[in-house]
Amino acid sequence: MRMVDLIHKKQHQKELSTEEIQWMIEQYTNNEIPDYQMSAMLMAIYFEDMTDAERGALTMSMVKSGDEIDLSQIKGVKVDKHSTGGVGDTTTLILAPLVASVGVPIAKMSGRGLGHTGGTIDKLEAIPGFHVELSQEEFVKQVNEHKVAVIGQSGNLTPADKKLYALRDVTSTVDSIPLIASSIMSKKIAAGADAIVLDVKTGAGAFMKTPEDARNLADAMVKIGNHVGRNTMAVISDMSQPLGFAIGNALEVQEAIDTLKGHGPADVVDLCLTLGSQMAHLAGVGKDLDEARDLLEANLHNGKALEVFKTFVAAQGGNPDVADDPDLMPKAAYQTEVLAHKDGYVAELVADQLGVASMMLGAGRATKESEIDLAVGLVLHKKVGDKVSKGEALLTIHSNQQEIPDVEEKIWECITIADEAKPLPLIYDILAGK
Amino acid sequence: MRMVDLIHKKQHQKELSTEEIQWMIEQYTNNEIPDYQMSAMLMAIYFEDMTDAERGALTMSMVKSGDEIDLSQIKGVKVDKHSTGGVGDTTTLILAPLVASVGVPIAKMSGRGLGHTGGTIDKLEAIPGFHVELSQEEFVKQVNEHKVAVIGQSGNLTPADKKLYALRDVTSTVDSIPLIASSIMSKKIAAGADAIVLDVKTGAGAFMKTPEDARNLADAMVKIGNHVGRNTMAVISDMSQPLGFAIGNALEVQEAIDTLKGHGPADVVDLCLTLGSQMAHLAGVGKDLDEARDLLEANLHNGKALEVFKTFVAAQGGNPDVADDPDLMPKAAYQTEVLAHKDGYVAELVADQLGVASMMLGAGRATKESEIDLAVGLVLHKKVGDKVSKGEALLTIHSNQQEIPDVEEKIWECITIADEAKPLPLIYDILAGK
Repeated sequence: MRMVDLIHKKQHQKELSTEEIQWMIEQYTNNEIPDYQMSAMLMAIYFEDMTDAERGALTMSMVKSGDEIDLSQIKGVKVDKHSTGGVGDTTTLILAPLVASVGVPIAKMSGRGLGHTGGTIDKLEAIPGFHVELSQEEFVKQVNEHKVAVIGQSGNLTPADKKLYALRDVTSTVDSIPLIASSIMSKKIAAGADAIVLDVKTGAGAFMKTPEDARNLADAMVKIGNHVGRNTMAVISDMSQPLGFAIGNALEVQEAIDTLKGHGPADVVDLCLTLGSQMAHLAGVGKDLDEARDLLEANLHNGKALEVFKTFVAAQGGNPDVADDPDLMPKAAYQTEVLAHKDGYVAELVADQLGVASMMLGAGRATKESEIDLAVGLVLHKKVGDKVSKGEALLTIHSNQQEIPDVEEKIWECITIADEAKPLPLIYDILAGK
Repeated sequence: MRMVDLIHKKQHQKELSTEEIQWMIEQYTNNEIPDYQMSAMLMAIYFEDMTDAERGALTMSMVKSGDEIDLSQIKGVKVDKHSTGGVGDTTTLILAPLVASVGVPIAKMSGRGLGHTGGTIDKLEAIPGFHVELSQEEFVKQVNEHKVAVIGQSGNLTPADKKLYALRDVTSTVDSIPLIASSIMSKKIAAGADAIVLDVKTGAGAFMKTPEDARNLADAMVKIGNHVGRNTMAVISDMSQPLGFAIGNALEVQEAIDTLKGHGPADVVDLCLTLGSQMAHLAGVGKDLDEARDLLEANLHNGKALEVFKTFVAAQGGNPDVADDPDLMPKAAYQTEVLAHKDGYVAELVADQLGVASMMLGAGRATKESEIDLAVGLVLHKKVGDKVSKGEALLTIHSNQQEIPDVEEKIWECITIADEAKPLPLIYDILAGK
């Protein structure tokens, strides 16, 4: 087999066989195929797309390129959730204990963040004592005992994807549905998922700017999942404004705790119940999505979800008292309110730019080496569509520096107050798989 | 400037500026842009094409990437001719002295061949004593004194093109009109051409299989030439059967001599007069193409073209007596006639396969290291459309091995005799430039 012939096939709209794709990914991972041939192939894929069979083969070839997490010692269907990323997305912190509370085993690997705020792993470290490094055995044992564990990524998962992603980044081939979809799905499958729920974000704060693009990506991932024997569902949700009120690490943990106590922001609750009912349903809990949702909603109000959260935190060395005493988490020195300069309705809260403002405060990493300030961030008091009066607080800045004129300036670029504005939809579409 | 941004522009149908293309080619030549980014760009160009301005900028950037031959000390317009390559193409050997005989300076650099037969430089070496290595000063001096010199390629011409071509070869991006056209034109311009005549071949023995593809390539090159200030014309000519009768090095020199004596094969004479009149016309000889053609045709019959050939051969150390005594050139030990097995008309003489047969005899190089046997080859006695009787000779094999069953078998694969067949057209189109 010669790589140049495979490139030629892809260029000329001929389907690559599973054997050809496996060979290509193996050889590339082993540095037997040079980057310059792979980048030509990636660009040909960018223009000519991939069939469902090709996408499935690419996904599974990347899974097989490295370690695969073995969760077979955990009883039950292992359901994973993946979000394509946004601003103020606290859902994993809520969903892990909430879905575990209805009996679904949650064995989740999560990442650190690069960008607006930390990742789930960074956020969890705002809880004093919490540690995210468990051995494979400890991980499985904790899930079997307490139904939930969340750890940092370990092992050499999908090295082919890492190598391909680095190449795509410098060859303008990131923005390709088959490549994005197979990259995400390969990571979830290598991490041991039997079934997958996808939260595909759309809007200014998301990679997919329009609901249509997000739907295409979601559809591609659901098809790959079902093609390779992993039940997969997807939700297309809004990320033109931040999710919930909190943006920042400790601030989002606090919002997650509030939600687990039954008084979370309406959009956070709705999204968690939607995603959570899919996860529970794929794991066989409840006779349908509605029943699964009812079970979850009950556990938000009867204390069971919060109880699982506390057990989970304690199991990983964290102080469970954090659930009742937010002061146990890092707290910013200064709180500054940003006030409305006129009467009207909030028409715009540009998610990605509010994320940038939060990163400027220190909540996120500009580079891999940056240190995160877990205390800082923003807390919104209004969302798009809300009425506001002149002088009323739009949001509060939590900072560790007193003078933050550049952040305030950035924030004003993100906010529009108009004479009229409607609330934004939260969920654009749900893809139920096969 | 970042290469990834230029790739993104090309992917999204935005025109690259001259500055951007210059920067890209400079940086790539200096190994500052890695192959993996350039191959992504080449594939994007394959799919998205280039505008006339981009093609001109690419051509001139490749010219500037290395040495440029300075022919300014030669009086007159320096016209070069380029053929895209075929089987039995003897035209340069004829055109150089013929066009020089009407007063046009011919300062030609030519190559060795890889494939069916040798290149012009290999063929000239069939003349005893002929040497192809002249210094820049000797080259210019000879053209000023004798109007014609043909030498091997020297100097570091278009290193960017060499580097790009090697990359295209392994990334399936050879077959792209803007890349082929700029590659050819950059080499001609770097070799010092003021004006260029192109012979774009089409058919089984050519890279461009259909007249339409050949026309697209010719049109692209004519546009580039005129865009960068080099008067350029092009002829689309047939290469479904070999040109003339001879295929092989000494055999083609003999055919060239015959033609310069006024009795060449009809197709060779016609093509040489067509290309030659364009060359003469671009150099300002004759008030129009017809008058230029008349002047050339006269010199084929009055001995002037042959005289220039002899002078040219002698000037480069060769024995001019070769013009009257073919036995001075290498001669094959065995001549074997291939006889028609039935009455009919020659319907097919597949050019590239006859070229392969000739290479099997030793006339061409399979690899860069192969030695050429200058004596061997094929001489056709019939062309497509000719009537043939059973037992009549179709062609003669000139070989240095007595037993050549594999060559004979290959030759029979190339020949079709049918009940009816028409002669093939020689010239499909002429592109006159602006």
